[in-house]
This record gives sequence, structure tokens and C-alpha cells, in this order.
Amino acid sequence: MTTKVQTVCIIGTGLIGGSLALALKQAGFCQRIIGAGRTEETLRKAIELGVIDHYETDFSLAVKDADIVVVAVPLSAMKSVFEQIAPALPATAVVTDAGSAKQSVIRDAEAAFGNKVNRFVAGHPISGTEKSGVTAALVDLYKNRKVILTPTEKTDSDALKLITEMWQASGAEVESMSAEHHDMVLAGTSHLPHILAFGLVDCLNNLKEVDEIFRFAAGGFRDFTRIASSDPVMWRDICLSNREDILRMIKKYEEQLKTISSALQDSDGEALMNIFARAKRARDQFNNQ
Amino acid sequence: MTTKVQTVCIIGTGLIGGSLALALKQAGFCQRIIGAGRTEETLRKAIELGVIDHYETDFSLAVKDADIVVVAVPLSAMKSVFEQIAPALPATAVVTDAGSAKQSVIRDAEAAFGNKVNRFVAGHPISGTEKSGVTAALVDLYKNRKVILTPTEKTDSDALKLITEMWQASGAEVESMSAEHHDMVLAGTSHLPHILAFGLVDCLNNLKEVDEIFRFAAGGFRDFTRIASSDPVMWRDICLSNREDILRMIKKYEEQLKTISSALQDSDGEALMNIFARAKRARDQFNNQ
Repeated sequence: MTTKVQTVCIIGTGLIGGSLALALKQAGFCQRIIGAGRTEETLRKAIELGVIDHYETDFSLAVKDADIVVVAVPLSAMKSVFEQIAPALPATAVVTDAGSAKQSVIRDAEAAFGNKVNRFVAGHPISGTEKSGVTAALVDLYKNRKVILTPTEKTDSDALKLITEMWQASGAEVESMSAEHHDMVLAGTSHLPHILAFGLVDCLNNLKEVDEIFRFAAGGFRDFTRIASSDPVMWRDICLSNREDILRMIKKYEEQLKTISSALQDSDGEALMNIFARAKRARDQFNNQ
Repeated sequence: MTTKVQTVCIIGTGLIGGSLALALKQAGFCQRIIGAGRTEETLRKAIELGVIDHYETDFSLAVKDADIVVVAVPLSAMKSVFEQIAPALPATAVVTDAGSAKQSVIRDAEAAFGNKVNRFVAGHPISGTEKSGVTAALVDLYKNRKVILTPTEKTDSDALKLITEMWQASGAEVESMSAEHHDMVLAGTSHLPHILAFGLVDCLNNLKEVDEIFRFAAGGFRDFTRIASSDPVMWRDICLSNREDILRMIKKYEEQLKTISSALQDSDGEALMNIFARAKRARDQFNNQ
């Protein structure tokens, strides 16, 4: 049975917040959606696109009647937003976020909410595109996608239940795990690949043959580097927020690259073949999931 | 004006050879297509799918009446195929290949064809998918894609013209450059990305959390690692054939990764942001080509 929700306030109506608003509206999950952000132009655009019902640029006003507050801002803005809303939050309101790193957000929430942190549920929808902004918002961005919630021992169970229901209403499958585990897994599946893609494009871009290189790139390159079109601010923030896990993953990757390059140095076809064949098997298996 | 072509012989009727056969048939480029290969089952499948008109497992028989011979086999098999067809080739026949590295193929051709190497035109269609085999062949695989031909000073101009016309008939845009330049450019746009993708999947696959990691991977990961489903034999061969250029590219990439990892180590958000923003600009520009 779904809890009755009047007002959802979404702070940050970009791709992530905007898509959630569209999905919650379509599902009839709440009576109204208030959008909040720093830029009035973006908020007006969100109204125009039918993403939100109403907007506020003052975060205290935005959250004062909210049942749920979703903070969908870059990780570097999280703490400041939490601090701005903390005094104005209704006692029953539940706050959640959509950041790609979870331990840092939980630290920010504990600092800002103090003993009210029991009403905070850290979350991360594993979805997105390389685009950003409210104009990129999609009603089905979360459909059949996973959302990971990372409650702590302080999190109220009714708060966890409400945020679970909200994401389910958007079409997502919700799972819970520890923030530590989340950050380690995401460092591998998402953060490292983004760094590798940004790194490759920048590396090729520094070569003197850069025009030729991009001119003769094919579909494989296009797919491989699509994520290098992602928002640099968002990715700077993710890197800084999940620094330790990402550094560990880069180190493992460097070792892997060293293994490949040594095999190549020695013209060791068998070693190369073993690596490529293992990778193909794993990737094909992933594809058939 | 297109030269009149009776018979095209395609040795290796996989994704690359099979797709060319389909396109040439659709274009009415030649009277008949003979498929050749080691595995009779594959050749029978190619007949069944309407990819080729006739097949031979004896390469001398396959090429004896050919106007054009396309050798679309893995790079490691190139030399042996050239040696098998050399004595049986009609004097006017033109031989081409579809390998992803060109200096090594030219060396193989010179060794096998000797003073008849003027009838050989090295070529590389910049197209493909992560799939392989004749069942993956597509009639429009080369449509609006680039094909690079790398003639040498020994190559007959009428031979270059004929192979240019053949690829144009398949829908491709044909360009010429030196084999050295081709191998350097492709090391960057294709060979390095494949190695990075194979490397990432194998690296993640070695972690104890491997199941979780693949379970929580999203669309970005799927795109990024698609090329890791490519044929390991083909990629072993490409690595060994274009070893020097690939090693140089890996070295540059390792330096890039070191720069990123140092910035991360120092929590230098500005340095990270600069790299990511430069990469995004370059990638967005490539997208708008």
C-alpha cells in the first residue's frame, strides 16, 4: 500500500531531478511537485515543460510543506543545500538525494541535519545519459533501472519505506546496501569507466594528428567515448567525493594495462588472447543478463 | 565509369567479407561471387544466406578466374593465404585485403607475391560491429563508412582504381594514405580503445565483487564495454601486427592516467575539471561531425 504523499520538493530540476518529477507525475504519486534551484530561468523552463507545478528559489520556502525533499544537485553543492533546508524542514519530512557517491553525502547530511539525520535516506538512481539539464529529462529514465538506497543504522524505517515507494513509483527497482559497498561497486562500474573515457579523448586530443584521428573514428569509438560527453562539474565532484575508491580502482587498472603492455612488448599472443577472451566471455555474459 | 567485373572471390566470408559480398550483389558490381574458406559449413551457410553464389575450399581453384580477390581473414592468416593463392592468380587479377593494420599486411604481400605485388592494394574498411561470422553480415555495413586504401609506390594505378570502385559500389567513401599513417591513426581511434575496454572488463572480472559490479552497471558501462565483445583472435592479431604504434599509444595513455590520478591524489578539482571539460568539448565536436 502506497503512503499518501501531498508534496514532493525537488531541489535541482536537471536531468535527474526533472526525470523523477515527470515519472512521479505520470504515476500520480503526489498531489504536487515543487521545483527549487538557484536559476529562475531553469525553473521557469521546468514549469513550461510540465516537469514541475510550482517553483521557489528560496530553499526554506520550497521545503516548508514538503513530505519528501529530493536533493538532486552536484555533490559539491550537497552540504550547502542540506544546511539551507535543515532549519525549515517539517518534522515528518523525509529528505533523500541522488548523488553518485554515498559516503560523502552521508557525512554532509550528518553535519547539516545533526540529530534529525534519521529522516535522511541516501540514494542513487543508476541511470542517466551523457546529457544534462531539464530539457534532457525523460519520463522513463528510471523505468526498470536500479536505484540503490544506502540507509545507515540511524535511518528511520518509515523514511526508508517512503523513499523506496517513491522510486518504485518512478518505475525503478530499489535495492539497499551499505554506502561503503555502493561506493566501491560504483567506482568500478561507473566512475573508472568515465575517467578512462575522458582520459582517452583528452589523450587523443593532445596528439598533433587529432583531426585525422577523429575523422577516421568509427562506431566502436563513438560508443566507447559517449560518456566523455558527460558534465565535467558533476564528474569532478564524483571524483573528489569517492576519491579513495576511485584511486584504488585506477591502480588496479594501471596494473592491468601494464600486464597487457608487457605481453605486447614480448609479442606474447597467447597472453593477449587469454585476456581478450576472458573479457569477451564476461562482457557477453553481462549482455545476456 | 565502372570497370566491368565478372568474378569477385572473397576469401573469408565472415562479418567483413560477407557484408562486402551482400553489398556488391545489391549494387550489381559483378556477375558472381565466389566464397572461399577453410570451413565448409561456414561456406554452405553463406550460400544458404545468399551471401555468395559459389564456394571453394581450395584457394587455388577459388581464385583462378577471379578479377578481384578480397582476403578477409584474420591478420595472422594473411601471409599463408597470400602464399596459397600467389601461384594460381590470373595476371590481371587484383588482390586486396581488409585487415586493421596495414604495414604488416604489405610486408606479407611483398613476401608472398614478389614482383607481382603491383597487383595488390592494401585496404581497411573502418566499419564493423562487435559481432563476427557470416550470420552477422549486413548489406549496409559499409554505407557512408570510410575505407582507407594504402597503396605503395609499387601499386598499379588501375589496380587501385578497381579496388576504389569496388568499395564505392558497397556504399563506402574511399580515401588513400600511407600505411604508416594509417597504422598510427588507427592505433589511436580503434586499437587503443579496444585494449582499454578488454582491459577494463577483465580488470573488473578479477574483483571478488564481480557479480555485484556487473549487476549494477548501467547504460554508460554497456556502451563503453561493447567493443570488449569483439573477437579475441582478431584483436590478438591486430595487437601483434601493429605492436609498435599500439605500445606508443598505451604509453601516452598511461601518462594521461597518471596525470588524472595525481590530480585526484591531490584533490585538485580544477585540474580534473580542465581535463574533463577539454575531453567533453572534443567529444561533442566529434559528435557533431
